Amino acid sequence: MLKLNIVKIGGAIIEQEAKLLPFLQGFAALKGPKILVHGGGKRATAWADKLGIPVQMKDGRRVTDAATLELITGLYAGQVNKSIVAHLQGMNCNALGLSGADANAIQAVKRPVKAIDYGFVGDVKQVNNRWFKHLLGQNISPVCCAITHDKNGQLFNTNADTITAEIGKALAQDFEVKISYCFELPGVMKDINDSNSLIEKINQASYQQLLLNNTISAGMLPKLHNAFDALQAGVKEVAIGATNMINQTIPYTSITL
Amino acid sequence: MLKLNIVKIGGAIIEQEAKLLPFLQGFAALKGPKILVHGGGKRATAWADKLGIPVQMKDGRRVTDAATLELITGLYAGQVNKSIVAHLQGMNCNALGLSGADANAIQAVKRPVKAIDYGFVGDVKQVNNRWFKHLLGQNISPVCCAITHDKNGQLFNTNADTITAEIGKALAQDFEVKISYCFELPGVMKDINDSNSLIEKINQASYQQLLLNNTISAGMLPKLHNAFDALQAGVKEVAIGATNMINQTIPYTSITL
Repeated sequence: MLKLNIVKIGGAIIEQEAKLLPFLQGFAALKGPKILVHGGGKRATAWADKLGIPVQMKDGRRVTDAATLELITGLYAGQVNKSIVAHLQGMNCNALGLSGADANAIQAVKRPVKAIDYGFVGDVKQVNNRWFKHLLGQNISPVCCAITHDKNGQLFNTNADTITAEIGKALAQDFEVKISYCFELPGVMKDINDSNSLIEKINQASYQQLLLNNTISAGMLPKLHNAFDALQAGVKEVAIGATNMINQTIPYTSITL
Repeated sequence: MLKLNIVKIGGAIIEQEAKLLPFLQGFAALKGPKILVHGGGKRATAWADKLGIPVQMKDGRRVTDAATLELITGLYAGQVNKSIVAHLQGMNCNALGLSGADANAIQAVKRPVKAIDYGFVGDVKQVNNRWFKHLLGQNISPVCCAITHDKNGQLFNTNADTITAEIGKALAQDFEVKISYCFELPGVMKDINDSNSLIEKINQASYQQLLLNNTISAGMLPKLHNAFDALQAGVKEVAIGATNMINQTIPYTSITL
């Protein structure tokens, strides 16, 4: 089976052109089919401030009201996405920016209201794997932002890590999928302040042990949850590490079943 | 030859959901291949005010500095484009939003600095007609915003009327192209305040006469210039009129050679 690289970059990298451009060079140089997923960065909060849109956080998650959704659709699907696509085109990577609404790429449902109403936040319902396969077959590299839709006119804010995992799951029958979550650290660390504490390999058994020992920081738990979810659905490997891991031989955390 | 409808809507319609939704219903109902091009609307000025980005106009055109380009990329390629795409998807039209950077759809060059430097304003150099043909062949309807790129990492602000004409010209060898410029008036008027003064037909000879008689308002001249430019390159008909002309039998201005 053909290998497929799905790479996700976080907001902190997006905001620093000195880090973003070398990363995009590395992504453009990756051989074979590839997909980029990006978060939004911290500018959403800065712009919301300037525009007088109150930022509401509940349990560490942004509540997305109509004004916030409009703002982040502009930032993520517009500013960030088109800047990345234009840079990749300049690097001879035939990039195509996508929100979930474009060609119905990613359909979602509004997160059910339980204790908290997160507003216009969508949980992924279906990834249009035929569309992604079609694009990859044309040697086009999709660049996906974290905006989805309900196929009924409504856009949603959706977690970029989850979108990455869902795209991987949807394509696992057709490709040997490797997901790379790139962020500011070298990978999953035992001690976030000790760069020698990188955990280079995690599998299902060692993951249970790490959970029991309380070794993993709270911020890393959703990423690992997404990782095992994707692996159980047929994704071959999930890598968590620095941006340059995608095309340099450096240590990172490799997660397999 | 297969007919291709290329429809452009202006900013005033985009800002009014009560007008935008019926228009999009009409567009979604159009049979056969179709492309939508949209302007940005007046919100660019409102947002620039709120964000403290000074609006500079020279000769009635916005000067696009880096901050303005970033803002309008968010507004046009993000907010407006994705809202339109999501609505069309809800109407069972398989819409795909595009900036010029996406799959290198529309390449441009920075407008040469003569008396005025318009900043990051691009003049269309090449429309990727293979890509548009490919999408139309997949029954996908491109929704194009007025952002282009130079294939070297730089985005540009570009006039939406011109983009519409350039797409039409690029596809005139493969389709029988009809361009419809939809706006707030019933078409080209002899007297803008007299709805009975609609000019229903213009050809090259009568256009020269209208120019000699000073019948055409200054704001309409670039549209007519674009229209004849497109017709001379093989576009079959250019229509100028109200939004509902695309699928209702109402009077409009029909321009042919």
